[in-house]
Amino acid sequence: MAIVDVTVIPIGTETPSVSKYVAEIQELLHSYEGKITYQLTPMSTLIEGELPVLFDVIQAIHEVPFKHGLQRVATNIRIDDRRDKESTMARKVAAVQAHLSQTETEIEPVHHKE
Amino acid sequence: MAIVDVTVIPIGTETPSVSKYVAEIQELLHSYEGKITYQLTPMSTLIEGELPVLFDVIQAIHEVPFKHGLQRVATNIRIDDRRDKESTMARKVAAVQAHLSQTETEIEPVHHKE
Amino acid sequence: MAIVDVTVIPIGTETPSVSKYVAEIQELLHSYEGKITYQLTPMSTLIEGELPVLFDVIQAIHEVPFKHGLQRVATNIRIDDRRDKESTMARKVAAVQAHLSQTETEIEPVHHKE
Amino acid sequence: MAIVDVTVIPIGTETPSVSKYVAEIQELLHSYEGKITYQLTPMSTLIEGELPVLFDVIQAIHEVPFKHGLQRVATNIRIDDRRDKESTMARKVAAVQAHLSQTETEIEPVHHKE
Repeated sequence: MAIVDVTVIPIGTETPSVSKYVAEIQELLHSYEGKITYQLTPMSTLIEGELPVLFDVIQAIHEVPFKHGLQRVATNIRIDDRRDKESTMARKVAAVQAHLSQTETEIEPVHHKE
Repeated sequence: MAIVDVTVIPIGTETPSVSKYVAEIQELLHSYEGKITYQLTPMSTLIEGELPVLFDVIQAIHEVPFKHGLQRVATNIRIDDRRDKESTMARKVAAVQAHLSQTETEIEPVHHKE
Repeated sequence: MAIVDVTVIPIGTETPSVSKYVAEIQELLHSYEGKITYQLTPMSTLIEGELPVLFDVIQAIHEVPFKHGLQRVATNIRIDDRRDKESTMARKVAAVQAHLSQTETEIEPVHHKE
Repeated sequence: MAIVDVTVIPIGTETPSVSKYVAEIQELLHSYEGKITYQLTPMSTLIEGELPVLFDVIQAIHEVPFKHGLQRVATNIRIDDRRDKESTMARKVAAVQAHLSQTETEIEPVHHKE
C-alpha cells in the first residue's frame, strides 16, 4: 500500500478555471472504488492503494484533459511508500495528532522560534 | 491570497517515521493564526494567506528539522495563486463539487474511458 | 513522447547523503537505453520517452532504495506531456533560448503581449 | 547555501506554449547574478544561493506571468538544503558520478551497505 498525491494541470485552457477537469477526475476515480481509497483536498487528489494500481490510476487521470481537446498536461505526483508498517491516510494523520496531544499535556512544550 | 501545499522531508532520520516533525510544524503554524488558514492532509500541509506571509511561514517550517539536529531537508512546495477572483481552500473544493452534482443530475454523464 | 522529472528520496538513511542511490538509479536507467533518453541534473533525473514506458521506468527506479533495506521512499514526479508537437528535452531548451536571443538583438526589451 | 528547483506554470494561456515566460524568467535571474547561480534544464530552473535570497528570487519569478495579464500561476518548488557540508549543484552531480565510476571499475556490481 502506498499513498500518492496528484495534481493534473491542463495547459492552454483559455481561462484560469480548471475545476471541471478536477471534477471529471473525481468521477473517474469513483470507477476504481474497491481498489483504491481517494480524497479530494483543496490542492490535489490523494489516492491510497497498491502501487501498481496507483500507477494505472495516475495514467488514467492524466488523460482526462486530453480527452477534452487540450494538448498539454503537467501532472505532479508525490508518492509516499512505506513498507515497515501498513501506512494509510487515516493513520498518517492520527500519528501526527498523537504527537500533538502528547505535547499539549507535557509540561515543556516544543520550543520553536529559538 | 494564495494557497500553498507544503511537505517538509527531513533526510537522515534513522527511522522512516517523520510524524514528530510534522506535528511540530503544526504547532508552529498555530502561532501564525489570524494571518493564515491551514489544514493538515495525510500528504502535506495546506496554507492559505497573503503570498509574502506564506513565504515567511514556509521558511519557518522548513527550519523545523534543522532545530532537531538534522542536516538536510527536502521541502516541496506547490503554490496556487489565482488573482481573477478570491480563491480559498473552501471555494476550490466547492467549485469541484458544483461540477460533480451538476453531472449527477444531467441525463448524459461525462464519458470517461472512451 | 513525454518528459518526466523524477526525484527518489529515501527516508531513514542515517546520513544526509543519498548519492549512492542516485548513482544506482542512473545505472538502472542505462539498462533502458534505446527506449528512453535521460539526463541527470543536480536536482533530479529527467527522462524522455513514451508515457507507458516512462511509468514502468519510474516504478523501477522507485524500488531502488527498498532493495537496499530502506523502508520508506518519497518519490516526486513532474510529467510534462505535450501532444500538439513532438516535444523533446532538447527542443524545450532551444525554444527558451530562441526567445532569449531574440530579446538580446532587439532594442526594446521583453514586451510580450501586453 | 541551498538549491531550489522551480517551475512556474501559467494557467489560462490559450496555447500550450509557455517558453516565452520561461525566457523572461531567465532574464530576470540574470539580474540577480553575483548572488545566485542558476541553470535552465528542460524541465525547470535550478537556482543555488543563500536560502533567504532564493525565496526572494522565487517570489520575483512567480510574478512574471501575472505581469503579462495572466490570472493564475502554479509554481512548484523543490528545496534541497544541506548543512553538514557545502552542497553545490556541481558537487551534487560529482558525488553521483564518483559512485558511478567506482562501480564501473569494480568487479562486483553495486552492493551498498546491505
